[in-house]
Amino acid sequence: MGEKDQDIKSPMKRVGSTRKIVMFSSIRQQLNEQLRCLDTRVESQIGLIQEIQDFFRRRGELELDYSKSLEKFARGLLLKHKEQKQKRDHWPIFSTFACWQHLVKETQSLSKDHAILADLYSISIVASLQTTIEDVQRIYKKVKLIGYEIHEDIQHLLQELHTTMKTYQRYESECKSAKLKLVTAESQRKKLEQTIAKEKLDRNKKYKLTEKEIVKRDTKYKDARLKALKAKTEYQLCLEASNTTIHKYFVEDLCDLIDCMDLGFGSMISKAILMHVSADQGRSRAILQQADNLSHLIHSIDCRADKQKFLEHHHAAFIIPKRLELQYQQDQTEIIEVDIKKELHLDMEQRLETLGQRLRDLRIECDEVWKSLETAETKLLEHYNNKDNDTSDIFTEGKLYIHKTPNSNITPKLKAEKQDIEDYYIMVSCRKHFLQINYYCYCRKFENI
Amino acid sequence: MGEKDQDIKSPMKRVGSTRKIVMFSSIRQQLNEQLRCLDTRVESQIGLIQEIQDFFRRRGELELDYSKSLEKFARGLLLKHKEQKQKRDHWPIFSTFACWQHLVKETQSLSKDHAILADLYSISIVASLQTTIEDVQRIYKKVKLIGYEIHEDIQHLLQELHTTMKTYQRYESECKSAKLKLVTAESQRKKLEQTIAKEKLDRNKKYKLTEKEIVKRDTKYKDARLKALKAKTEYQLCLEASNTTIHKYFVEDLCDLIDCMDLGFGSMISKAILMHVSADQGRSRAILQQADNLSHLIHSIDCRADKQKFLEHHHAAFIIPKRLELQYQQDQTEIIEVDIKKELHLDMEQRLETLGQRLRDLRIECDEVWKSLETAETKLLEHYNNKDNDTSDIFTEGKLYIHKTPNSNITPKLKAEKQDIEDYYIMVSCRKHFLQINYYCYCRKFENI
Repeated sequence: MGEKDQDIKSPMKRVGSTRKIVMFSSIRQQLNEQLRCLDTRVESQIGLIQEIQDFFRRRGELELDYSKSLEKFARGLLLKHKEQKQKRDHWPIFSTFACWQHLVKETQSLSKDHAILADLYSISIVASLQTTIEDVQRIYKKVKLIGYEIHEDIQHLLQELHTTMKTYQRYESECKSAKLKLVTAESQRKKLEQTIAKEKLDRNKKYKLTEKEIVKRDTKYKDARLKALKAKTEYQLCLEASNTTIHKYFVEDLCDLIDCMDLGFGSMISKAILMHVSADQGRSRAILQQADNLSHLIHSIDCRADKQKFLEHHHAAFIIPKRLELQYQQDQTEIIEVDIKKELHLDMEQRLETLGQRLRDLRIECDEVWKSLETAETKLLEHYNNKDNDTSDIFTEGKLYIHKTPNSNITPKLKAEKQDIEDYYIMVSCRKHFLQINYYCYCRKFENI
Repeated sequence: MGEKDQDIKSPMKRVGSTRKIVMFSSIRQQLNEQLRCLDTRVESQIGLIQEIQDFFRRRGELELDYSKSLEKFARGLLLKHKEQKQKRDHWPIFSTFACWQHLVKETQSLSKDHAILADLYSISIVASLQTTIEDVQRIYKKVKLIGYEIHEDIQHLLQELHTTMKTYQRYESECKSAKLKLVTAESQRKKLEQTIAKEKLDRNKKYKLTEKEIVKRDTKYKDARLKALKAKTEYQLCLEASNTTIHKYFVEDLCDLIDCMDLGFGSMISKAILMHVSADQGRSRAILQQADNLSHLIHSIDCRADKQKFLEHHHAAFIIPKRLELQYQQDQTEIIEVDIKKELHLDMEQRLETLGQRLRDLRIECDEVWKSLETAETKLLEHYNNKDNDTSDIFTEGKLYIHKTPNSNITPKLKAEKQDIEDYYIMVSCRKHFLQINYYCYCRKFENI
């Protein structure tokens, strides 16, 4: 509120002539008090908007800092990746690499969203609230002026009421004095009627004069009486109008004035804060979308496909070599003599029996190994797949945050167990082939003989 | 990989005796190349995990900074509020104050969530990935050792194959020389049979000796032949076993080795990143919840209720004053004379007619004002309620961000129009009562007469 506004005193203060009437003075004080209350009210409104504006201005700065940090971070990651290109040459073979790429992209996107948020807070919402402040100030200036005018109107009404009352009172006393004069003349006539004989009265000069005076005074009284009655009606009507005006001012007009002050206050603040609400909703959806995409990538991690890519990438090292061929002597006897054939057969049959026995032993051994291998694998997968990676519930409002590390519920004993199983699993799953190879070779030999 | 690991040379390099056989040498080179590839692979895996670990470590730091800034900001707001308690004494009267309170509370909650996020990134996920790195390194160490062992086994097989081949070749040439000796003896016997008469042959000493020699050489040859055949079978079986082993190693065992290397790699990285995904989902839900709460508060903003609270708070200033009473003279004539009554009535009837006319004019004026007031209010509400406060769509991925300020689509012309309507609205809505008051007073007077 400018100084100019404060200089305007309520017109009620100038109602000097009514000061004697306590009620008038009390109303005047009340109206002045009202304007003081409205001043305080608009100051609170503006203070509140400025506080909210300040909130968004500073939140905007915070968001911008955060956005810049994220952007710088993501840029650094990409730069490092470019610099170490040679060292990271094989990374794209792994499907997990896509996750890393997504993390970087997601960070950039998050940075962008917080930059938008910063802009929205520091520029849009601050500007919107600035408009609201100006609106509230401008409107209050007008409302206050109208308030003064209404107060002036009420003062005029009260002055008019005072005047009509005074008029009524004057006319009323004039009427009374006219009545008194009439009554005096009438009592004079009565006295004459008692002292003078009835037949002489008509010719008595004094009596005639008195009679004339009575007629004159009666006319005067009736005029005064009419004037007083008219003034009374005027006073009554004026009182009624004053009471109605004051009552209406207190019941309706004050409300209208305050409604005008609030014009836009609530709705503009709502709008500004709703921008923040919808921005939060928007950025939440963006985060959820990114989380969905990343989740999809995680579930696309395929170690078998990665392995295949790796083998293809190093084709020369992992291609199956040509079979080794028999190194025969150039000239050799093809026909085996009958007796040699017989002896050879005898020898082979003995070997066959030995091989058959070894084969049965190996088969039993293999079956047992397979069984324990399956158990080990199941246990190992249990260790890897324990479901303590869902952290979403720690953000639920009011929920106590319990520090979570993956496998945080794993005791040293469990960890040792895990490593034992792991050792066994690796040893067996890589070495099982030797049993199988032996088994396989003996089978082949057995068949060839 | 430690130095110790690099010192272990592939056993294939020690297969010196087979160097002459090109195929053996080629297989040896290939196996060494494979180990080099696996080294590179595990380096890439660890590099990738370390990069992701580094990502979360640094994101954690960023989140912590952001969280601290938010916390400091919120604390500052509350401190300022406490300091300015007196000045802000009337704020709680406004329902908009609850929005400000929510903004502060929301900031604190956001700070808490980002602190949790920082913890999750810097501690939980980093620790989880550290475990993964250790797992991958430990497992690879074992896998590499097993790889060496398999290579050694293959080398032994190839050496054995080489030995059996050499044995077979030696026995084969022994068999050949035995055969040659046998054939020489037989040709000697033939020569004797041709030079000596048939009947003298049985008694010929030289022939007898030759015959004995043939029997001896035949036995020797048959022994050599059996040995050579056995060695050939041994060689064939050994070749078969070598081929099977090598084939199985390339087709199955290498895959098993790589599978063991990947044991936990994919699933542990998935788990770590899924923690991030679920955390993002959790914090999004928290943001949405806060937005919902704030939205609810915004829709609870009630200017009328605020006004009522304000009026109650300043009860003394806004209480309706007592009605003004008629100030009658003490003694007054109650009975109005008949002729005065008549004249009074005549006068009143004239006033009534004047008032009636004024009343009709006012009624028309009032109706018009009401109509234009309604139009103005509708227009003004249009200005306030234009729906450009939904900013959620600017966060949709890929959508171009168009800078939005509330009323940004309002031209100066529209703004001027808004202020004109506002002026009119305030003026009329506050001043309409005077028309109404006049109307009301005239009505009352009309009725009283």
